[in-house]
Amino acid sequence: MQQPVFFEDFEVGASIEFGEYHVTAEEIIEFATKYDAQPFHLSEEAGKAMHFGGLCASGWHTCAMAMRMTVDNMPEGETGTLGSPGIDELRWTKPVFPGDTLQIRNTIIDKRESRSRPDMGSIFMLNEVFNQNQELVMSFKPIVMFRKK
Amino acid sequence: MQQPVFFEDFEVGASIEFGEYHVTAEEIIEFATKYDAQPFHLSEEAGKAMHFGGLCASGWHTCAMAMRMTVDNMPEGETGTLGSPGIDELRWTKPVFPGDTLQIRNTIIDKRESRSRPDMGSIFMLNEVFNQNQELVMSFKPIVMFRKK
Repeated sequence: MQQPVFFEDFEVGASIEFGEYHVTAEEIIEFATKYDAQPFHLSEEAGKAMHFGGLCASGWHTCAMAMRMTVDNMPEGETGTLGSPGIDELRWTKPVFPGDTLQIRNTIIDKRESRSRPDMGSIFMLNEVFNQNQELVMSFKPIVMFRKK
Repeated sequence: MQQPVFFEDFEVGASIEFGEYHVTAEEIIEFATKYDAQPFHLSEEAGKAMHFGGLCASGWHTCAMAMRMTVDNMPEGETGTLGSPGIDELRWTKPVFPGDTLQIRNTIIDKRESRSRPDMGSIFMLNEVFNQNQELVMSFKPIVMFRKK
């Protein structure tokens, strides 16, 4: 199911699942080389030497992959999103490995009309990212601003 | 100044500044194309149509750039870091534009020994990312685990 477009359409408590992101060693290493070149994000051996157990994705890369799934799930064309002021309680709970397939569960936890801007409001979400074994690998709580109709 | 290597070396209240990340339109568009293909991260015109005022970086891209500056500031060779369980209170406070130069101020806000693992502890940080006009563009509070000596 796709994400609603306007503030009024979000229902507190509603939950949708979406995404199918195939994680590859090439992409893990490419992202880490550019942005997070710590040994355990660059080679299998260094990942094994840590508690991770093998090459694993930068946590920021997992965020980026979650964003890609989110954008792919946005309705085409008209969108009411006005961007995000931030994220609360981001947690990396399990390593993300090459060969993993990720999926998101997005739950609406609260919504608030803007006091200063009557044409918009904030949606408070919980995003949980799972791997193919239904293990939670990451969770975070985005705040996203949406236009009203 | 570089980041300390071991848990004992972090001092609550200590603050360091580092980094010099030059943001380009090419990199903003490249990152967004892969991970956050919303119009305002892909073209000047779409950014102008929003409240952002022009092409601006994905917030996740700003996180990635901050991580790059952090890794570049880690002491070479031996490092005590054991990864991060997560981030609190991530806020995107101003858009990041092509031509901006970013810098980080890292402040140690708390430290706690692990109850279950006597060989490690958690460092609670505040990272503030500024542009060349000393405007805060992003702030976040990473929790990072470090080995003891």
